[in-house]
Amino acid sequence: MSALLDGVYDGDLTVGELLEHGDFGLGTFNALDGEMLVLDGVCHRLRADGTAERASLEDRTPFAVVTPFEPTVGFDVTTRTSRADVVAQIIEREDSQNYLFAVRVRGRFESVTTRTVRKQQKPYPPMREAVKDEAIVTFEAVDGTVAGFRTPLYERGIGVPGGHVHFIDDEFTAGGHVLDFVLERGRIDICRGTDLQLRLPLNESFGEADLDPEDLDTQVRNAENSRPPR
Amino acid sequence: MSALLDGVYDGDLTVGELLEHGDFGLGTFNALDGEMLVLDGVCHRLRADGTAERASLEDRTPFAVVTPFEPTVGFDVTTRTSRADVVAQIIEREDSQNYLFAVRVRGRFESVTTRTVRKQQKPYPPMREAVKDEAIVTFEAVDGTVAGFRTPLYERGIGVPGGHVHFIDDEFTAGGHVLDFVLERGRIDICRGTDLQLRLPLNESFGEADLDPEDLDTQVRNAENSRPPR
Repeated sequence: MSALLDGVYDGDLTVGELLEHGDFGLGTFNALDGEMLVLDGVCHRLRADGTAERASLEDRTPFAVVTPFEPTVGFDVTTRTSRADVVAQIIEREDSQNYLFAVRVRGRFESVTTRTVRKQQKPYPPMREAVKDEAIVTFEAVDGTVAGFRTPLYERGIGVPGGHVHFIDDEFTAGGHVLDFVLERGRIDICRGTDLQLRLPLNESFGEADLDPEDLDTQVRNAENSRPPR
Repeated sequence: MSALLDGVYDGDLTVGELLEHGDFGLGTFNALDGEMLVLDGVCHRLRADGTAERASLEDRTPFAVVTPFEPTVGFDVTTRTSRADVVAQIIEREDSQNYLFAVRVRGRFESVTTRTVRKQQKPYPPMREAVKDEAIVTFEAVDGTVAGFRTPLYERGIGVPGGHVHFIDDEFTAGGHVLDFVLERGRIDICRGTDLQLRLPLNESFGEADLDPEDLDTQVRNAENSRPPR
């Protein structure tokens, strides 16, 4: 994640290799050409123009997180619930904040507000510049899935500390990086991750990147619009 | 490493399992009962009383880092060289500070100053307390090996950012956590690590630990006596 913030937008890992490590997850594609969402072993690419397509196994990613999704805890939500309340209900069921949790919310959403990165041209600007012209799209009265991870804070620098989720509708036609949502009703499943396998890019831009900026937390918040990691 | 700083001194990983992941590395043992050094697939335990012994495959560790050591760069040192100068020569040969490097220094040392943790009793104190009464031992005119890792700063929280090395003499009878050394002559080999596999402890004390303290950098420096990570 630190590398992405510093403008390292090209990786060498293919979607095909990524899917060998898990059937669930999220990320982005080379050149920041769309948001990635992996559900049930299928890798979707969500673009800023509102289109969505199945990614090719040859597509490459500079940043992605996947896991075999085996839900260990699940519960139903039967009344209108805000994102903050969904998060609170999830935290209540986690046994510790010191592990990563994969989270999947399937159901009917009153609204989902998303943001989607735009494809960048070289020389790549840092993330703080790249996100400036992102399109914000709100979906209303939509069936779909919000999925992603809650990452422990000590993994800042490697991942996105705190919550990080993407959305796709049930027809797999649209979605994006989630800023907020209101769930009407749905099913929430979570899956604890206790091991981490980190594979680093092996290119020059990664080797030369500033991966330990003083303002890392601020940069992540700005890039992901997540809540403060502390 | 964050867990160790917070007093999580018991892990569930055995030395036998650890050695399946690499033949080279360092760490500590449950209850902080000695410094660990893994060389050529053998796990050594270095105790504060100056003794050293081969660890049992059933011994357990709360923190250890190992890798298959396949040196990619090596060079000879033929004149008296300080630790700082050895580090400078290593950095000169690394292609990037953004990867982890395993480092092995074999040779004749004018001196090696070491510190060794003492076995702790429950309830465990945090690391800043535990290291207060550590024994400092200086070995002089000794043949041996200084080995360990240089870890990228963005892995703070997971590992020990910067340099972290342990020492053992050629007879495998004594050693410890290295504070400083002067090399008379020797061979230095380094090996780049591009993947990280992190396995977290699965016990209650890890689950409840504070793994993201505000003063993490200070705590690591204090515990390891390493140079400032920035």
